[in-house]
Amino acid sequence: MKALVFHGPGHSSWDSVPDPTLKDPADVLVRVDAVTLCGTDLHILRGDVPEVASGRILGHEAVGEVVEAGAEVHSVRPGDRVLVSCISACGRCRYCRAGRYGQCLQGGGWVLGHLIDGTQAEYVRVPYADFSVHPLPEAVPDEEAVLLADIFPTAYEVGVVAGRVGPGDTVAVVGAGPIGLAFVASARLLSPARVIVTDLDGTRLAAARSLGADTVRADENPEEFVADLTGGAGAEVAVEAVGLPETFERCARMVRPTGHLANIGVHGAPATLHLEELWIKDVTLTTGLVDTSSTPLLLTMAQAGRLPLAPLVTHRFPLDDMEEAYRVFEDAATSGALKVVLTGAAA
Amino acid sequence: MKALVFHGPGHSSWDSVPDPTLKDPADVLVRVDAVTLCGTDLHILRGDVPEVASGRILGHEAVGEVVEAGAEVHSVRPGDRVLVSCISACGRCRYCRAGRYGQCLQGGGWVLGHLIDGTQAEYVRVPYADFSVHPLPEAVPDEEAVLLADIFPTAYEVGVVAGRVGPGDTVAVVGAGPIGLAFVASARLLSPARVIVTDLDGTRLAAARSLGADTVRADENPEEFVADLTGGAGAEVAVEAVGLPETFERCARMVRPTGHLANIGVHGAPATLHLEELWIKDVTLTTGLVDTSSTPLLLTMAQAGRLPLAPLVTHRFPLDDMEEAYRVFEDAATSGALKVVLTGAAA
Amino acid sequence: MKALVFHGPGHSSWDSVPDPTLKDPADVLVRVDAVTLCGTDLHILRGDVPEVASGRILGHEAVGEVVEAGAEVHSVRPGDRVLVSCISACGRCRYCRAGRYGQCLQGGGWVLGHLIDGTQAEYVRVPYADFSVHPLPEAVPDEEAVLLADIFPTAYEVGVVAGRVGPGDTVAVVGAGPIGLAFVASARLLSPARVIVTDLDGTRLAAARSLGADTVRADENPEEFVADLTGGAGAEVAVEAVGLPETFERCARMVRPTGHLANIGVHGAPATLHLEELWIKDVTLTTGLVDTSSTPLLLTMAQAGRLPLAPLVTHRFPLDDMEEAYRVFEDAATSGALKVVLTGAAA
Amino acid sequence: MKALVFHGPGHSSWDSVPDPTLKDPADVLVRVDAVTLCGTDLHILRGDVPEVASGRILGHEAVGEVVEAGAEVHSVRPGDRVLVSCISACGRCRYCRAGRYGQCLQGGGWVLGHLIDGTQAEYVRVPYADFSVHPLPEAVPDEEAVLLADIFPTAYEVGVVAGRVGPGDTVAVVGAGPIGLAFVASARLLSPARVIVTDLDGTRLAAARSLGADTVRADENPEEFVADLTGGAGAEVAVEAVGLPETFERCARMVRPTGHLANIGVHGAPATLHLEELWIKDVTLTTGLVDTSSTPLLLTMAQAGRLPLAPLVTHRFPLDDMEEAYRVFEDAATSGALKVVLTGAAA
Repeated sequence: MKALVFHGPGHSSWDSVPDPTLKDPADVLVRVDAVTLCGTDLHILRGDVPEVASGRILGHEAVGEVVEAGAEVHSVRPGDRVLVSCISACGRCRYCRAGRYGQCLQGGGWVLGHLIDGTQAEYVRVPYADFSVHPLPEAVPDEEAVLLADIFPTAYEVGVVAGRVGPGDTVAVVGAGPIGLAFVASARLLSPARVIVTDLDGTRLAAARSLGADTVRADENPEEFVADLTGGAGAEVAVEAVGLPETFERCARMVRPTGHLANIGVHGAPATLHLEELWIKDVTLTTGLVDTSSTPLLLTMAQAGRLPLAPLVTHRFPLDDMEEAYRVFEDAATSGALKVVLTGAAA
Repeated sequence: MKALVFHGPGHSSWDSVPDPTLKDPADVLVRVDAVTLCGTDLHILRGDVPEVASGRILGHEAVGEVVEAGAEVHSVRPGDRVLVSCISACGRCRYCRAGRYGQCLQGGGWVLGHLIDGTQAEYVRVPYADFSVHPLPEAVPDEEAVLLADIFPTAYEVGVVAGRVGPGDTVAVVGAGPIGLAFVASARLLSPARVIVTDLDGTRLAAARSLGADTVRADENPEEFVADLTGGAGAEVAVEAVGLPETFERCARMVRPTGHLANIGVHGAPATLHLEELWIKDVTLTTGLVDTSSTPLLLTMAQAGRLPLAPLVTHRFPLDDMEEAYRVFEDAATSGALKVVLTGAAA
Repeated sequence: MKALVFHGPGHSSWDSVPDPTLKDPADVLVRVDAVTLCGTDLHILRGDVPEVASGRILGHEAVGEVVEAGAEVHSVRPGDRVLVSCISACGRCRYCRAGRYGQCLQGGGWVLGHLIDGTQAEYVRVPYADFSVHPLPEAVPDEEAVLLADIFPTAYEVGVVAGRVGPGDTVAVVGAGPIGLAFVASARLLSPARVIVTDLDGTRLAAARSLGADTVRADENPEEFVADLTGGAGAEVAVEAVGLPETFERCARMVRPTGHLANIGVHGAPATLHLEELWIKDVTLTTGLVDTSSTPLLLTMAQAGRLPLAPLVTHRFPLDDMEEAYRVFEDAATSGALKVVLTGAAA
Repeated sequence: MKALVFHGPGHSSWDSVPDPTLKDPADVLVRVDAVTLCGTDLHILRGDVPEVASGRILGHEAVGEVVEAGAEVHSVRPGDRVLVSCISACGRCRYCRAGRYGQCLQGGGWVLGHLIDGTQAEYVRVPYADFSVHPLPEAVPDEEAVLLADIFPTAYEVGVVAGRVGPGDTVAVVGAGPIGLAFVASARLLSPARVIVTDLDGTRLAAARSLGADTVRADENPEEFVADLTGGAGAEVAVEAVGLPETFERCARMVRPTGHLANIGVHGAPATLHLEELWIKDVTLTTGLVDTSSTPLLLTMAQAGRLPLAPLVTHRFPLDDMEEAYRVFEDAATSGALKVVLTGAAA
């Protein structure tokens, strides 16, 4: 089959590789009908994620059809259309029993396109299938469903739920990239009174507004802007959706006493935590990898037409144009790309 | 009357000053029968809290008798024996209605011995009396009750509750000073399975053990020790009870995925937050000033004999020996002082 | 002034009575600009609420202007436009400190138009003003604001919050009278996936649909209908909004294992609780009087245009037409009345 | 092998029956080393649980050794000493993923000794072994461990957790049989200020006191007694541990506004719910079958010596004396039996 293979920092190509096969009775093989690219894939390509070995097939998000299922798979069977979650989960360890699948102790967690071959391919082997793929209702089209593999559950769990967004809240989001926008869209489920989004890219701010942000602003000093809008109080919830020390530190200045700072960004460097100001301020800071425990709920909302997924998909390609799709996605500043979806011939 | 007056960094004395008087109909005057010294008072004396003006009477913890009450005071009256809380609260603002008295927006919060004259005196004026003093049951003696003015509600609210200590948890505490010890004593109310305390002072570790710590250790590398004890998993709850960047950073390494780091320490400098490790780890970090919303609950438990308060009081003085009490408290390394209680002639 | 005076079961009239005066320094006098009628007022008139004395002025909901304020009132002053909450609260007792104002131990709770004279008058004395009236933002018109005095906080607190409505839930509501409709409107804030409403009145069902109900049905056996719609599982949340034993019992059959039954209805007779079926079913049943602790949040949402209040107001009268307004409200089956709002000359 | 076989209402005997065998790759076979009798077994014998077929082996609690494990069993293997939980769980259905194993949709829940053959035998087949048996630490002896199969998780989950017992609470328990006593023992983990127990049996009340109850009373009118002790307020938590309509109704009168009534009792008849009093009182009533999701936590506490299990075991028999053990257990009024433990020859 064909697959996007990582050949070390700066190198990847759409190669012919052997088809995957079942390795464990809990595995399924899935024919990939839709796949998307993630900012994390770009980090891997740049060499920022050293545990990804050369030769690895990338990708951790997909929609497809089960073509083979091991003997211990009970939840799906060949022919089923499924969502391949970015998180695989044994379902039995201490963390999995608590629904914290991202922290699975038995070889699950984020492994696809990271520690084992991933979804940017014509076929993918998914371990622990009972807890790692979700049967899909017909009402949710492939290119929307694939956004429920990672970006929407991440925005909802690590942003909305961890940040305790609730009715009437003032929420400040730093970063209007795909994950920040997915946060804006899913935060609406909890009816904050006001969602303020800051970013330096006007196109992304416009997307934020169209997804329900009340106030958007391209501003170098968003903390002053948020302070002004809230009479000096700050936001009940501040959301870091960039992944840089300075944006995290800005969020820490935006949050009001008793408020929450939910970090969604993927960070490569430490930040400075101003405990000399924060110790007295009653703030809760949260970090986290997605568990995808919310995927069934988000599927229900998508099926009911209450989660705006489609606006995030800006570019579409056939699966074979993987390398071109990467170029467009990487050059988002020019292309305006948010989520790029590739579809297989069978889809 | 006599009072401990701050005369700028490094200077304080037990001076004769005018008696306080009511300034507002919501005030009470309290005759101080028992008062204690706090680590924060030492910070003020060193000049670390610049908003404390020269001439200020220090102290924010007391037990005494109401001698005069303003017309708007409804909860206590002259003759009542009361606990003077370290937090004053208007009771009406947005934060007070939510029980977050420490963040009071109308001149409450931590003001005693900070922004207004405090309790290390023969008499003290307490603003917003209805929400700032608590009638005391007879069963709780003065020197135990005075520990409920600050240190125990701080340990319980900012440590136990914010850290979500629960049955079966492994809890790691860095620092066995008075606040760390009060945490150990009050964490027992929630039945963690194991409380591990680290400090460099053997006497304090012995006190921790006597208050219910399961494992104590004088160790330069407590994070390795905690990792060993937990099979590499780390603690469900890590508690910073020192107030230094390095102890905070150690706590961040001690906490397991999905765990809580509760900061109780008062910090004067920023810490480094290793987001490059933490972003993926599902941790919740909390900071906070005490609200003293738990004081009635802690009084109930003290009255029922279920909160070990007395062991924290190591030294007792008459009120007039205030300067000597400070010397003993400041020189805790030699004196072994934990909490030092001073009692007035009437007590 | 003129006021609606209760003269014993079956008798009431719009009488001339003495103007109210301040009785306590925590009181305010409010000129009533808008007032509404409540199903509870009809119960009182029928003699179902025996503690209401003959001679009592009825009414517990109003919008108006503060004309006089006692010396202990700090939150509002003469000239302020305010919402008079159906719940008065001392703010200091154990329940009030926890925000459970409906259970106030010091003469608060539901007293207006019940134990003291109420709001269906040109002027009303409101006790404990700091916790019993709310300053109103200009953006919310009188006839919408008056719905935040009782019906909307009741629907939100006793229905939505107590019932733990959340994203993705299936919610079944029995009763589409004003309170059931206010529940439908406010439940939307938490994004249930599906709201099913049953009632025997087609007009009210149409109103439910226009407020956001997904499925409405005039059905004698709504429990079968809900079972069919949920594949036999039942609803995550069942809401009783009628006040009869049989509708409560139906709700108990509608709720799925691990679900919630929130009772909003005012009941005059016991129901049968089928513990022989329920003991094994993991259900949570809640009852409650409103606290109006959510009023600030609901005001924020109303101000942001995110709470559909206006559709509940079907009839409007001048204050002097109080008797006619009662006739229309009482005869809802014919008049189609939901909420009836009366406005004073000054409004 | 030998087993206690149900032969229809009023009839059971310790019979020779065929050894069980694996039926599914997720099954284990366990050699029973310790087993106990439950009040529910008595109900079955009386014919109160009609779905139990004649010929069924009874019993749903055991400790033993795995002697054979199916191919899909990953958590235990032959030779492991395990606790057999009263609840079997597929681990994959909607309820199991939420930890609500008692409501398992795929043939789990309470099935042992109910819908399939149970543990009162020399060997037992346990379905869905990964989620239905727990490896046992050596420190917990068999006769204590077997109490974690049902009675302690039931008391903790359905009583302590559902009833939201917390520090400082006043808790009133009606019924001091084994489940009421297990509640008293496990409620201590959350430090209520006062636990009041009522029952008509003096021996059981003495046991309650020895397990930590603060006040015990043989009283026909416990609601008056609780009212007196609480200054008329009532209990924060009322716990029904009998299973009769009248005791449930008493609990409903004992609970204070904003309090919780946790029903643990197994009921065979409906109760009267006085909604005409309760609708305004802010109470939460909970029912439920145990999930045994707390078993790992309780094992941790038992291992740490912090859960008093042993005092509940009053009588011990060899496994072959099953019929005699039933006689003693059934005649608790005379024998004083609480929990009766039978041990196999290998134990």
